[in-house]
Amino acid sequence: MIEAGQIYKYSFTFTQQEVDEFARVTGDNNPLHLDAHYAANTPFKKPIIHGFLGGSVFSKILGTKFPGEGTVYLKQNMEFLRPMFVETPYEAILEVKEVEKEKNKALIQTNIIDVSAQKIVVRGEASVMNKEKIQ
Amino acid sequence: MIEAGQIYKYSFTFTQQEVDEFARVTGDNNPLHLDAHYAANTPFKKPIIHGFLGGSVFSKILGTKFPGEGTVYLKQNMEFLRPMFVETPYEAILEVKEVEKEKNKALIQTNIIDVSAQKIVVRGEASVMNKEKIQ
Repeated sequence: MIEAGQIYKYSFTFTQQEVDEFARVTGDNNPLHLDAHYAANTPFKKPIIHGFLGGSVFSKILGTKFPGEGTVYLKQNMEFLRPMFVETPYEAILEVKEVEKEKNKALIQTNIIDVSAQKIVVRGEASVMNKEKIQ
Repeated sequence: MIEAGQIYKYSFTFTQQEVDEFARVTGDNNPLHLDAHYAANTPFKKPIIHGFLGGSVFSKILGTKFPGEGTVYLKQNMEFLRPMFVETPYEAILEVKEVEKEKNKALIQTNIIDVSAQKIVVRGEASVMNKEKIQ
């Protein structure tokens, strides 16, 4: 059961193949994410991961792990503070800030950390509902 | 060139195959999105689209159409006000609220409308940077 103060951590990495598939499924073919030559002429020097692909780790965690199956998304805020790259170790850290048991709702801080640099790359907050797991 | 007050509209629809592919790429296998039997026992009665898949239309538009190629995401807020379903006509409506020319940044209201019901299903706001297209 979800309680205020709980923390859930999840380690992950993306590959360029996953970035390419995400571009295909969503239609976001911005060359900043796909084309090494194009990206070489940007301040990032190499392709960066779509913000929405990075942030989708929150959707995965909230919908399958914490709280898990049956979670309904109500809100998600994201600040993309630093670029994310493929083949780089990241950790998502979710912390439960508030629980409204009678409404089956929770407010959860959702951050992504660059594990090597120990810096926040995405900072955000989610609001979710889950009738079975938040009560 | 992006100016305050500009509006960009984009019509779209998702298929269950796209939902399934999105689940595979992101790892969000929440049965609420994939399993008609599971969804039949929820208030939605049928599978709903992942909030992040619906919202990814903002990433597609901002990164490939308006402003387009080279756009860097700085922030995205989303409120999932109503469920989204497959085979349903939606329209994304983006309205430029503020432009900071010297920083190549724009604040853009990002909404999704259910075309038949004429109701907002996702309400949000994005902040983006594009050195060539916002100046």
